Amino acid sequence: MTGRTAGAVDEQVIDRLRDAVGARWVRTDAATRRAYARDATPLFDAEPDVVVQPGTTAEVAAVVRIAAAHGVPVVARGAGTNLCAATVATHGGIVLSATRMDRLLEVSEAEQLAVVQPGVTTTALATAAAAAGLLYPPDPGSRAVSTIGGNVATCAGGLRGLKYGVTRNYVLGTEAVLGTGEIIRTGGRLVKDVAGYDLTRLLVGSEGTLAVLTEITVALVPAPPTAGYGVAYFDSLADAGRAVAAVVGAGLVPATLEFLDATCIEAVESHAGLGLDRGAGALLLFGDDGAPAQVDAALATMVTACRDAGARAVTTAPDVATAEDLLAARRCTLPALSRLGSLTVLEDVSVPRPRLAEAVARIGDIARGTGVRVGVFGHAGDGNLHPTAVADGQDPAQVAAVHRTFEQIFQLALDLGGTITGEHGVGAAKLAWLPRRLDPAQLALMRRLKAAFDPAGILNPGKLGS
Amino acid sequence: MTGRTAGAVDEQVIDRLRDAVGARWVRTDAATRRAYARDATPLFDAEPDVVVQPGTTAEVAAVVRIAAAHGVPVVARGAGTNLCAATVATHGGIVLSATRMDRLLEVSEAEQLAVVQPGVTTTALATAAAAAGLLYPPDPGSRAVSTIGGNVATCAGGLRGLKYGVTRNYVLGTEAVLGTGEIIRTGGRLVKDVAGYDLTRLLVGSEGTLAVLTEITVALVPAPPTAGYGVAYFDSLADAGRAVAAVVGAGLVPATLEFLDATCIEAVESHAGLGLDRGAGALLLFGDDGAPAQVDAALATMVTACRDAGARAVTTAPDVATAEDLLAARRCTLPALSRLGSLTVLEDVSVPRPRLAEAVARIGDIARGTGVRVGVFGHAGDGNLHPTAVADGQDPAQVAAVHRTFEQIFQLALDLGGTITGEHGVGAAKLAWLPRRLDPAQLALMRRLKAAFDPAGILNPGKLGS
Repeated sequence: MTGRTAGAVDEQVIDRLRDAVGARWVRTDAATRRAYARDATPLFDAEPDVVVQPGTTAEVAAVVRIAAAHGVPVVARGAGTNLCAATVATHGGIVLSATRMDRLLEVSEAEQLAVVQPGVTTTALATAAAAAGLLYPPDPGSRAVSTIGGNVATCAGGLRGLKYGVTRNYVLGTEAVLGTGEIIRTGGRLVKDVAGYDLTRLLVGSEGTLAVLTEITVALVPAPPTAGYGVAYFDSLADAGRAVAAVVGAGLVPATLEFLDATCIEAVESHAGLGLDRGAGALLLFGDDGAPAQVDAALATMVTACRDAGARAVTTAPDVATAEDLLAARRCTLPALSRLGSLTVLEDVSVPRPRLAEAVARIGDIARGTGVRVGVFGHAGDGNLHPTAVADGQDPAQVAAVHRTFEQIFQLALDLGGTITGEHGVGAAKLAWLPRRLDPAQLALMRRLKAAFDPAGILNPGKLGS
Repeated sequence: MTGRTAGAVDEQVIDRLRDAVGARWVRTDAATRRAYARDATPLFDAEPDVVVQPGTTAEVAAVVRIAAAHGVPVVARGAGTNLCAATVATHGGIVLSATRMDRLLEVSEAEQLAVVQPGVTTTALATAAAAAGLLYPPDPGSRAVSTIGGNVATCAGGLRGLKYGVTRNYVLGTEAVLGTGEIIRTGGRLVKDVAGYDLTRLLVGSEGTLAVLTEITVALVPAPPTAGYGVAYFDSLADAGRAVAAVVGAGLVPATLEFLDATCIEAVESHAGLGLDRGAGALLLFGDDGAPAQVDAALATMVTACRDAGARAVTTAPDVATAEDLLAARRCTLPALSRLGSLTVLEDVSVPRPRLAEAVARIGDIARGTGVRVGVFGHAGDGNLHPTAVADGQDPAQVAAVHRTFEQIFQLALDLGGTITGEHGVGAAKLAWLPRRLDPAQLALMRRLKAAFDPAGILNPGKLGS
């Protein structure tokens, strides 16, 4: 999956880029190109010809105009933490890094919003919001380093998605540079504004293929005064699934309802020694936030739902430190699984919530069939699961088996009425699968849409809209 | 504002339409054409050449293909309750009525969603959801007759928007017919699905200019067990604005936070005799839903905020009947104002919430300047206000003064960092204003986007994207 279909960028273009942003922000040395050859997606590797770090919107526009004039690909990149090879320069060209555009421009308490440059990290935004008594809800696993620009480009989710939704639900407006080099402003600071097509939400999740984000306005919500968490162990995911159904059936929309299967429990416990029950078939992490009485009531309902579904044990965290341990168990699942093999492929499918347990059971069957070790964890409340394969990346037979495993898992998700990606995106990694999810008329429409934003086809070619 | 730029549809096209959907569903008689010449927008009137009532998606596609082949405009229409002349056939052609596609296909309690045809009324959906213990939150004023297709096409709001959001937040998937006659399915039944561009949200609010909706899947939420409402009277909207700021500052996101100015209070009381305080300068209707303790706490906070802001009187509704009266006061504001003159123009602008009271005061100045009677009511929580002018529609001087009034109000909204339409839409009514809100590059992009969906330019010409 390493590949380049375009030739090197010629020196004349490099000179023009240097003129546009300053020579020190245009890097063509081998070390820099290697550093930007990969994102967090295993098995994808392609060096860009040049890495450009613009400092202003005008510089971004200048770079895009140069690229458009010369037909050079432009891959906008935040921290490169995406898991679908959305920021790998598969067609070479320019990686446009948001590193220098990392200013948090404004937090408005009265309007409950923030205005940021794309290179601001998710955690920096969340911290600034918290200082104003507000919450920025999306909290993807990589939030300490991931950027808001990347979060918007991939519509990132997180552990609070059930109650709070995903990045899409918080983007009020953007400033963006089209593939023509034109600068547009979509939406703005208003919660309600229907003047024109909803270009703001169209840009969310467009993975850098329609425009380069240069400024983002996000809505913030009042910070909930308290939060509470609990954990339940079950003999099987089917039991945990019944608990989830009971929670939802009780009319609750809790902030957090996450699960780990037996493989993940074992890996996390070996890695972090948090005292998890290694004998359990499934772990359910549940939590809610809000006023204290409301949180207590929600936790009590969830404890009862877990017990009624036959949980082996249910406990609630008596204090913040214990709650943090529970969240850490969920958050460290990927690093814990990564220790089991040199190759860890974290995947992302969604199924209708009532079919979650069935999906996990059938993923187990698939893994047994291909002989690949697969742990499954994810967001039980919205049916979004992350089957994760671990293997020896140096063994071509194992790598091939991992591919076969995921081919079957993607098909399973579609067969269950689900999708090939719930929150990680398409990128280069799943483009070949898109025709299994979307019909030809929609794929053709997407190509026409991309052409409307990017007539020269320079923005992240080989990804969405290609 | 009555106008037609295209000629009549020729008989050959009418014959093909009859072949496609059956002769009885193709109407060209004068009475039918007159009946479909207007929607709920005053001052806009244009008869279509033919009214077609397809019964299936395949028939919709056939009609669109015929129209595309002959360059005939197609105006998709639900109940025609929109307030921006979005469904007036300004260019003649076909009005495509959703009347016959009014089946509620499914309500899934386990997946918390409903699948409906576009002609289902908002109330029918809400009632079916309630029967399953679920809530469909958007509740536009016209909900008893408005259709879901129209709600999606205009991104309709309602009285619960502050807490629950608008139609956009509930559309999970669509089936739609492009201007080519091709049928696509966007999104689906999943809360999280990022496989492809977010065409679902792009279609929301696109006012029939990109595609004709033929099926819609909406998310439902657990029905809140209780709701409570209260009313506060203030000497001025500035006082009411301070109460709103205090409510928001206290970390509350209540379901309802609506206001009426003195003109609206007087009109409603004269019309409905609900016992409102005619001497007040502003009325604030507040309410929340959820668990009883949570509702009580929210109402107590809002009562305190109103008192602290200098309210003349604050009361909470002791029972459902009283609460319904309060909501009726807000809901009947438009009909009450309508009795004051033969012409009532309900408008829709948004400003940043902290500038609401200032906006209302300056609208008062504008109305005094033009000599037009203007009442203002709306959604205090999100800065979306509905200045409403009443005049003698037979007096050209008064009609001209109404236009001058709104020109100044739109400019005021923009000057305050707001927008020309918060929830009603652009349609034919505000198309001329769009260049004041969006820059030329974005308008040009919108035209390219429309062409991607509708290469022949037949879907609702003279509206968004034109």
